Amino acid sequence: MTIRLIGFGNSVCTIRVILCLKELGLSYKLTPHAGGYAALKDKDYLANEHPFGKVPVLYDDKFKITESRAICRYLAFKNQGKHNDTILIPNDIHEAGLTEQLISYGSSYYSPAIEKIVMQEIYEKDKGKTPDPVVINQGRKEIEAVLNVYDKILEGKEYLNGKFSLADLILCPITHYAHIAKHSDLWDKKPNVKKWWNRLKNRDAWKKTLEDAKNA
Amino acid sequence: MTIRLIGFGNSVCTIRVILCLKELGLSYKLTPHAGGYAALKDKDYLANEHPFGKVPVLYDDKFKITESRAICRYLAFKNQGKHNDTILIPNDIHEAGLTEQLISYGSSYYSPAIEKIVMQEIYEKDKGKTPDPVVINQGRKEIEAVLNVYDKILEGKEYLNGKFSLADLILCPITHYAHIAKHSDLWDKKPNVKKWWNRLKNRDAWKKTLEDAKNA
Ligand SMILES: N[C@@H](CCC(=O)N[C@@H](CS)C(=O)NCC(=O)O)C(=O)O
Ligand SMILES: N[C@@H](CCC(=O)N[C@@H](CS)C(=O)NCC(=O)O)C(=O)O
Repeated sequence: MTIRLIGFGNSVCTIRVILCLKELGLSYKLTPHAGGYAALKDKDYLANEHPFGKVPVLYDDKFKITESRAICRYLAFKNQGKHNDTILIPNDIHEAGLTEQLISYGSSYYSPAIEKIVMQEIYEKDKGKTPDPVVINQGRKEIEAVLNVYDKILEGKEYLNGKFSLADLILCPITHYAHIAKHSDLWDKKPNVKKWWNRLKNRDAWKKTLEDAKNA
Repeated sequence: MTIRLIGFGNSVCTIRVILCLKELGLSYKLTPHAGGYAALKDKDYLANEHPFGKVPVLYDDKFKITESRAICRYLAFKNQGKHNDTILIPNDIHEAGLTEQLISYGSSYYSPAIEKIVMQEIYEKDKGKTPDPVVINQGRKEIEAVLNVYDKILEGKEYLNGKFSLADLILCPITHYAHIAKHSDLWDKKPNVKKWWNRLKNRDAWKKTLEDAKNA
């Protein structure tokens, strides 16, 4: 099987899928879309790749699938346990349910809180704008409230659901960006969250992902 | 197995889970949280039910799970095909992947666009505030853009992924609220979307869900 990924090396959702591929031991070819982000709204791209004009898009031979979390689930269902021991979605129905619950905490509470800061500190800055201190402060407060909950969830555990799963994987790119944006103090203040991120960022798959993203 | 659901009859996420239970042919008991929405932020509720202070929460005997989409996936994995023929997440890996893609379109583009209007027209009104016409107009434009895409997705199909699936189910409550808020003209303008919503709202499970929600 040949996997082709349309995306960009600086896109959170693209990096999420790259990490998933690495964790599952799959190789792939990244083909950034010519014309960059602006060209994602071109007629051809909307008609043939993603109807809402987004990255990432993954081709598994001729099968096309979009949306980072959906792509990760698809890759896990198809490939987990084949090339290594990593199981991203547990086979046990209850454990799978709890993993889904944690994935939802990620997309409902953890990621949105961090995205506010990252948009300001990274993407708005890239456009030459000055980050808005009010938004940053509000974002920091929200992140702190969320990390308090995560610190409790992680009490006595190595990963969110005990074992490493898709629930952890999905949060790596945005957590990385928050650290790049120099808000690591929020993570460092919570002992369990700090150890968790340390564990995640030292995984082989994450290190390889960062290299691929940099070279993209 | 005894299913207990903590939630409210007017909560989009609670109604989503009730619909899932009905579609799968499962019975349940709804126990609204005493004290209403405000009490979801009480220490006890946060510690014992939902760490972010939200509904719904589902108990399947002693197994607890939160977050509407996670609950629906859990219920589907455990029960689909047992009490009737309804399959919410296809067994085929590719079809399951495409269903997940459509669930993600729902939570990333369809629901957020509609939520803006529903918050204004229903929840803000309930609080005695006047809906902001600027937000409403902006929301309507976004919904229209999203429904254009959905109309194409639904071309020649009865449901989003061909057969009825969790991708359709998940959108029923918010679509219903948009119609209650008198923005049905947006749906009526798109022929495939109009027929799709007509199909969905005439399903037995949806009619029973509305009755349960009303009586909650
Ligand atoms: N729900 C989508 C979100 C995709 C998304 O927003 N991608 C961003 C890059 S991280 C993008 O394509 N932005 C371009 C745009 O919105 O015009 C997913 O999980 O893949
Ligand atoms: N991601 C959650 C969202 C839950 C949610 O926002 N529930 C609303 C009711 S529809 C709620 O509990 N609101 C109370 C609050 O936010 O204080 C899910 O899908 O269940």
